[in-house]
Amino acid sequence: MGMKADNPSRCSAGRKDVVTRWVAFIAIAMFNPIPALAEPSPASAGPADPKLIEDLVAANRILAMQGVVDGMGHVSVRHNRDPKRYLLSRARAPALVVADDILEFDLDSNPVDAKGQALYSERFIHGEIYKARPDVIAVVHNHSPSVIPFTVSSVPLRAVAHSGGFLAEGLPIFEIRDAGGMTDMLVRNAALGRALAQVLGNKPAVLMRGHGAAVVGPSLPHVVGRSIYLEVGAKLQAQAVALGGAIKYLDPEEGRLIEARRNYNRSWELWKREAMGAR
Amino acid sequence: MGMKADNPSRCSAGRKDVVTRWVAFIAIAMFNPIPALAEPSPASAGPADPKLIEDLVAANRILAMQGVVDGMGHVSVRHNRDPKRYLLSRARAPALVVADDILEFDLDSNPVDAKGQALYSERFIHGEIYKARPDVIAVVHNHSPSVIPFTVSSVPLRAVAHSGGFLAEGLPIFEIRDAGGMTDMLVRNAALGRALAQVLGNKPAVLMRGHGAAVVGPSLPHVVGRSIYLEVGAKLQAQAVALGGAIKYLDPEEGRLIEARRNYNRSWELWKREAMGAR
Amino acid sequence: MGMKADNPSRCSAGRKDVVTRWVAFIAIAMFNPIPALAEPSPASAGPADPKLIEDLVAANRILAMQGVVDGMGHVSVRHNRDPKRYLLSRARAPALVVADDILEFDLDSNPVDAKGQALYSERFIHGEIYKARPDVIAVVHNHSPSVIPFTVSSVPLRAVAHSGGFLAEGLPIFEIRDAGGMTDMLVRNAALGRALAQVLGNKPAVLMRGHGAAVVGPSLPHVVGRSIYLEVGAKLQAQAVALGGAIKYLDPEEGRLIEARRNYNRSWELWKREAMGAR
Amino acid sequence: MGMKADNPSRCSAGRKDVVTRWVAFIAIAMFNPIPALAEPSPASAGPADPKLIEDLVAANRILAMQGVVDGMGHVSVRHNRDPKRYLLSRARAPALVVADDILEFDLDSNPVDAKGQALYSERFIHGEIYKARPDVIAVVHNHSPSVIPFTVSSVPLRAVAHSGGFLAEGLPIFEIRDAGGMTDMLVRNAALGRALAQVLGNKPAVLMRGHGAAVVGPSLPHVVGRSIYLEVGAKLQAQAVALGGAIKYLDPEEGRLIEARRNYNRSWELWKREAMGAR
Repeated sequence: MGMKADNPSRCSAGRKDVVTRWVAFIAIAMFNPIPALAEPSPASAGPADPKLIEDLVAANRILAMQGVVDGMGHVSVRHNRDPKRYLLSRARAPALVVADDILEFDLDSNPVDAKGQALYSERFIHGEIYKARPDVIAVVHNHSPSVIPFTVSSVPLRAVAHSGGFLAEGLPIFEIRDAGGMTDMLVRNAALGRALAQVLGNKPAVLMRGHGAAVVGPSLPHVVGRSIYLEVGAKLQAQAVALGGAIKYLDPEEGRLIEARRNYNRSWELWKREAMGAR
Repeated sequence: MGMKADNPSRCSAGRKDVVTRWVAFIAIAMFNPIPALAEPSPASAGPADPKLIEDLVAANRILAMQGVVDGMGHVSVRHNRDPKRYLLSRARAPALVVADDILEFDLDSNPVDAKGQALYSERFIHGEIYKARPDVIAVVHNHSPSVIPFTVSSVPLRAVAHSGGFLAEGLPIFEIRDAGGMTDMLVRNAALGRALAQVLGNKPAVLMRGHGAAVVGPSLPHVVGRSIYLEVGAKLQAQAVALGGAIKYLDPEEGRLIEARRNYNRSWELWKREAMGAR
Repeated sequence: MGMKADNPSRCSAGRKDVVTRWVAFIAIAMFNPIPALAEPSPASAGPADPKLIEDLVAANRILAMQGVVDGMGHVSVRHNRDPKRYLLSRARAPALVVADDILEFDLDSNPVDAKGQALYSERFIHGEIYKARPDVIAVVHNHSPSVIPFTVSSVPLRAVAHSGGFLAEGLPIFEIRDAGGMTDMLVRNAALGRALAQVLGNKPAVLMRGHGAAVVGPSLPHVVGRSIYLEVGAKLQAQAVALGGAIKYLDPEEGRLIEARRNYNRSWELWKREAMGAR
Repeated sequence: MGMKADNPSRCSAGRKDVVTRWVAFIAIAMFNPIPALAEPSPASAGPADPKLIEDLVAANRILAMQGVVDGMGHVSVRHNRDPKRYLLSRARAPALVVADDILEFDLDSNPVDAKGQALYSERFIHGEIYKARPDVIAVVHNHSPSVIPFTVSSVPLRAVAHSGGFLAEGLPIFEIRDAGGMTDMLVRNAALGRALAQVLGNKPAVLMRGHGAAVVGPSLPHVVGRSIYLEVGAKLQAQAVALGGAIKYLDPEEGRLIEARRNYNRSWELWKREAMGAR
């Protein structure tokens, strides 16, 4: 209900439906002192650390170069000056993102200054996860090609290799029909973003049925590394399944021991050089 | 019968057959005031918008770069000055097409001026679809490698991901044996093109048994985007099937809601830059 | 027996075996007026057409670029001045072959002038096929990665797409154990080459169990095109099989009609430009 | 027991456990005159052959370019002046390794001079294999993507093609749980390295469950070639299995005959040129 009010024109609907929704929208707006869509632009937390912007640009290009995103998908990072702000590109293919494309958003996913540019319609994935997960510093949304089959299959994604330690306890799947009924499957508003964050819970990633995944982490290298090894892990499991024999999955305890020590520094050096052409 | 008359030398045949066909051809030519193959070159609709030519060249290269076409396959666009003319390269590998290769054709697929160049023998796919589908502005014919298996399998192609929203209601399959019996499987004449357009109906694409697909759309970015995501979607479904579990396909209503809003602008910017080397 | 005599040191063997084989070798040499390994270098047919050499170099690089050969594999062409001579690189990775690497061989696979270079130990594939098949102008030997599984599987390779028209009647498989018992699986001598040519018969290609394929054709573009589409066709069939449904293979008559008209000129222009860096 | 003493902080543990382990560590240290972790830096065997360093750098890059390693994985070679020393990069992505990154280690995997750099935590794989196998001159550790599924599947890796002759007798699988119980799956100390070397036995490679492989050989080209064809062979078998028919594997005798003659010189020339950009 609140979700519909947030975005009353989301569904193609008969005239009567539209009227009903506008009535609901106005009613909710009257009882909510600061409705998200009506509020003025939020204040900036000030200029972000240029090194963080550089890493965010690199993260965009790395994900593209590694095949984890194509023309679609996005990656954000929490602002270094204010945990209530995050940084995300204007609506642009990740491979093309440059520092000037990075915009600042509040956690309701309102831009501080859109600079007249189009925004990712699914930016609510980022804002709502940052609200729900204070430990999360960076978020990726992708349509990872080897992961998608596991979002629609009754076969659950599990870890076959140590590089997928964070998969060893399994990942939840977000079914947008449960949250929004029939949609165009995009997380186009805060309500859908909240529902997604809820399914994510305290996990490192959530699969999205027929769509892709949202991956979270304590840093940009971490979230990029997890996104890449989520793709790798899904592919490895698919190959293992195709062999037709019994499979020895990682023990969840092995996964925990791996995650306790895991960082992506060595790979990040490589990925960043390759993506930024400075090799 | 009419089909054979259009292209009497299509089949390797005995002497008697050839005579019979020429008799049939001449008879039909006498009763048809303007037989396709005998008419003089059609008049030009005038120079096409250079931006449209540029996009058509880009479309050729994008399809090659994305692996949707190899040395074979082609893409056309309706002329911006006259819906009864379309633009298509001379017979050349799409990756090599430049503006000078683009020729103008009438809807019977006669070139305005062939400039002494060889023509795609399957250009009738384009002309006959433009005749049958006034809404179509651009057409791709390809041998998309992940799609071909679905043209010969009893397993139907369906949408597993939102990027394949246009697949959610299923695509028809053109069986050339129904239209032309034993052939070399190419759509070498207007009759086969018409039969293909008929099977296409009002759909966004038609699969061609043991051959590939013809994809249509309201613009070049749209038809290129659909061609790429047809390939992606086929691959995703194949991967999902290989997992061996039950699969949750997109609801047709989800597909309709996706298609109602779908454009390929963000990806087109990326694809065009990559293909034209101006990144 | 004769085969062993041709290459007495082929197997690691006990001392007695070696003696027995040398005796057999000498005996056969005495009764054969011109034993292959003892004859002086054959005469040259004269310098080959530089355009043919250029195309042979291109063929080497195209096969590498298309993934049909890796560091191993080779391609030859019959000499334009003498059907009893053929042209083949010295033992070198195809991607690195330049005009100076091309050597001339007689049909017993003796080099006219080895220039002190190592030779492909499997050159007998080429010579023996040229002997047996006067219609063949060019030969490729490869370890085509999608084809190898069909050389060891009980599932026969068949054509699912029109680009594989030449597969529609099926291809024979050479089992080297039938010809040579336990070997290192290489066609190291004329006897094994002859056995391979015999299994090839009048077909466009022969699969080699646990090894790869030998592909033949009436020109370099033809044999390169067939090698590429043999790989493509094997991959397409594997994908179709993996879908698990019934498969509609090409009718052999469709295959014949395709082959009657097939050439690779359009793709050859693309492949050659890509491989020679002149795009 | 000895293993735990070597690395008492390997597991996250309660306070009491930590105390117990330190006591054990000190006790063992007192009874072992030269405990590995306490000894001073070993002496250098002197500068290595620059050609060997060049080949080791090339090996790193080749493995990356061929997809056998990504950001992780490593390759070492025995020092040309002293079989009790080996050469290995500091902890760095193989694609980025240059001559200055190469360090010298003794067979306990202590660096002669770490130059203040981080070391590969799994260097014990190399040192312990060199101890156990005097015939081994070079070692690769990788997470080869087509091999990993065979490390967790009940379907054993076998040779379907002659390029995998060294697989024909089968490869052992190292289960780290047998050696170390619950771990983060890395071979972080000498005891785990010794256990791995023991499972390797006299074979050319050992698979590591849920992790990858360790490959050995009599030279850098050999170990690189085996690593590449281990990946190729695993992929070929997976494809053959997916066809669903019966499979003719190589006869072990064929494998032996292949290995008796096998070298990788021709491919090494290609790989090195490609990897070092001097093509």
